[in-house]
Amino acid sequence: MIELDPSQKAPLYEQLYAALADEIRTGQRAAGTPLPGRRTMAAQQGVSVNTVDTAYQMLAAEGLAEARPRSGFYVQSTYGMLHSRARRTPAAPVPPPAAPAGPVPLYDLSTGSVDTALFPAHSWGRIQKELLYQRPELLQRGEMQGDAPLRAQIAEYLSVYRGVDCTPEQIVVGAGIEYLLGCLAHLFHDGMAAIENPGYSRTRTVLQNSGIPCTLVDIDREGLPAAALEKSGANLCYLTPSHHFPTGVTMPAPRRAQLLAWAAAQPGRYILEDDYDSEFRFDTRPLPSLQGMAGPDGPVVYLTTFSKSLAPGIRIACMVLPQSLLARYRRDFATYANTVSRFEQQTLCEFMAGGYFTRHLARMRLAYKRRMEAFAAALRAALPGVELDGVHSGLHFLLTLPGAGGERAMVAAAAQQGVRLRGLSEYYLARPELCREDTVVAGYSALREEDVERVAQALARAWLCTPSDG
Amino acid sequence: MIELDPSQKAPLYEQLYAALADEIRTGQRAAGTPLPGRRTMAAQQGVSVNTVDTAYQMLAAEGLAEARPRSGFYVQSTYGMLHSRARRTPAAPVPPPAAPAGPVPLYDLSTGSVDTALFPAHSWGRIQKELLYQRPELLQRGEMQGDAPLRAQIAEYLSVYRGVDCTPEQIVVGAGIEYLLGCLAHLFHDGMAAIENPGYSRTRTVLQNSGIPCTLVDIDREGLPAAALEKSGANLCYLTPSHHFPTGVTMPAPRRAQLLAWAAAQPGRYILEDDYDSEFRFDTRPLPSLQGMAGPDGPVVYLTTFSKSLAPGIRIACMVLPQSLLARYRRDFATYANTVSRFEQQTLCEFMAGGYFTRHLARMRLAYKRRMEAFAAALRAALPGVELDGVHSGLHFLLTLPGAGGERAMVAAAAQQGVRLRGLSEYYLARPELCREDTVVAGYSALREEDVERVAQALARAWLCTPSDG
Repeated sequence: MIELDPSQKAPLYEQLYAALADEIRTGQRAAGTPLPGRRTMAAQQGVSVNTVDTAYQMLAAEGLAEARPRSGFYVQSTYGMLHSRARRTPAAPVPPPAAPAGPVPLYDLSTGSVDTALFPAHSWGRIQKELLYQRPELLQRGEMQGDAPLRAQIAEYLSVYRGVDCTPEQIVVGAGIEYLLGCLAHLFHDGMAAIENPGYSRTRTVLQNSGIPCTLVDIDREGLPAAALEKSGANLCYLTPSHHFPTGVTMPAPRRAQLLAWAAAQPGRYILEDDYDSEFRFDTRPLPSLQGMAGPDGPVVYLTTFSKSLAPGIRIACMVLPQSLLARYRRDFATYANTVSRFEQQTLCEFMAGGYFTRHLARMRLAYKRRMEAFAAALRAALPGVELDGVHSGLHFLLTLPGAGGERAMVAAAAQQGVRLRGLSEYYLARPELCREDTVVAGYSALREEDVERVAQALARAWLCTPSDG
Repeated sequence: MIELDPSQKAPLYEQLYAALADEIRTGQRAAGTPLPGRRTMAAQQGVSVNTVDTAYQMLAAEGLAEARPRSGFYVQSTYGMLHSRARRTPAAPVPPPAAPAGPVPLYDLSTGSVDTALFPAHSWGRIQKELLYQRPELLQRGEMQGDAPLRAQIAEYLSVYRGVDCTPEQIVVGAGIEYLLGCLAHLFHDGMAAIENPGYSRTRTVLQNSGIPCTLVDIDREGLPAAALEKSGANLCYLTPSHHFPTGVTMPAPRRAQLLAWAAAQPGRYILEDDYDSEFRFDTRPLPSLQGMAGPDGPVVYLTTFSKSLAPGIRIACMVLPQSLLARYRRDFATYANTVSRFEQQTLCEFMAGGYFTRHLARMRLAYKRRMEAFAAALRAALPGVELDGVHSGLHFLLTLPGAGGERAMVAAAAQQGVRLRGLSEYYLARPELCREDTVVAGYSALREEDVERVAQALARAWLCTPSDG
């Protein structure tokens, strides 16, 4: 009854094994019954005895059959001990995700997505495939901090483009900023962290989950003020100085110097600099990183992610540890395996080494800049009196529209028109009364260029009372 | 001077951009000098004005050129601010790894490697490539616990093959056991853990790094004794019941029942069951997991890894949380991104759904069983009086040879002959005096079949005094 097909890719022994395994699993071959003799089976199927033997051995190796001395192979008689449970209680089907409240958004202006059409699937896929076939050693365990060639590429890139002053030895690659913050929490286990308000609630969650108490410090127009930080009693300070999240403030140089002075004033003080989207700056040269101002032995841990420059689904981030933390990190994490697949590490490494990464970034900057300009123009045309802030960098901006009923009403009315966005006050971890009024956060990274006009019109319907409707 | 080649894959605008970027970076085009007019450049290169414009825009987007109104494009005059640092202090070259002490081992019998020749590169690569081109949504952020289809596959597999009793909702996918243990440490933040002695020092390190104090409990011939566990005062217990690491003891059912009774006796007690290599069992049916005995609401967290069944370089592990921990886990980790690349998650998912995974395991079991048998036979022939223990499962066994000078001398003499292996006492985290004498741990997963005889001969030279040499 079994049909083997020599033209298939799977070898004959595997086809035979799969067919027999199926018959055993479905009960067509009862537990304890003998399998046909090897010669008989070989003759029946027109294959060699070796082919049958390999198939039988595979069945035995999987516990579907057993070899009895001087008697041949039998369907495993104890088969069913584990399997009967599976028959009784099959894995429950995954319930469908809960239906979202209100209409499904047609246009998603939340932050954190990317335009998948910009991903360089062709070169990325080619490199990945070559590595899989040509570099089998990448299947083995790699270096704890990440593979050295990738760290060398990242150090070079951060040095040239972000003014980071480090050697590859200071770089730690990890599967996301959350994971790296968790490692840092161990190094700072008796510390307390100041977090920007408004800011990333994620950072507070991760640090608190990892045992670091957090205090919130309100930012002003130049970012986090050094005096308030001093007063907070924290010894750690998490900052997004290149492009404050979500307000878009770029911290000016004097403020940076004040914060570095704060860190240098006492041993054990550290700044955690999150440079999460500095790749996207459209009109001006970026300021170099705080880490670069402080130097390789300064009190700054630099963190960045490839989630925005590549894709959030590819989990690669990195941090640059100052020399003062490096020895302790290496001692305490010596037995850890790195959390990023070596194939993805090496794909990124070759992607950077071959110049694809900087070209990809240039292309993305251009595409996002055009999209931002088109979106901003459409919004200004459709929404008289609108103010847009933070358009020069990053992948989102603030949109303020007085007279549209306030932030909450704006978010709700936009949702009714199929546009998902968040109010600025949602990013306040405390004291939302400090929040600028009538302001929402508009991310455009996942917005298609052909939808720009439609989104502006939908928001106009949501937020403007047209006299003709009255 | 720039040569564009229409037959290349890269579009012409990208070739032009790359050539100009190179000239700017190497200083051939000085800061502040104008780039040729777009029409002039287009005529020179025989391309369209649009092509030149796109290349110039890319240069501007990367900060290498700037557009001046009514004047055209100039090499960025502030170029060099970040770049000059890179020129002054180029990233230091990675120093070569420290030379190992003694001769380089020719044969590595340490545990933790795999035979890369057994990796199913062909089907894995094909699935991966299809996903990259056909599923761009995988570039976006996925579910916190891991993608649902993968969790459904894992739940089904664990149910059928390991008797694990869970739904996909209880499964958490993560980039390695260390990462998952770190998450668990947060859930158990006021706990104390008992660790098997001998055992995995890695587990102790991770739990202690994450703030969980650890106490060591000596195992006996059936694994960790419940009475000693009760006396230890721990409320958490890390176990390898299927195949104790490194002694290979399989915990019998009565001992399992005693340990489950210990956990059930007080709320807040949990067993962490690490089923790290249960796929490799050659002669007997595996006992179902402790988790399955305890049920989906029982006090057991089941952990397993794909490091051995796929490859250590591909970082995928998972845990099964009991219902009692699930709500808290979801609340505290709600904002975390999963640590495994979605392409690798989905590749594994399709690999399992298509039946490749069980076939791959069957092939590996067969290959490793043959290798183990050949290696054991060669060792028994070459080393009269040798005892081999734990050959029926896992990818290593214990080798005892009285009269060879003791464990330390055996390890050193083997190294002199080019064979790397570890003494059993190295796995004792305390009380090494309890260790069985004259015993080393021999892993054979990375040993090639054609080397089996040579390794046995090398060990014979290392450990036997041949009278003719005397």
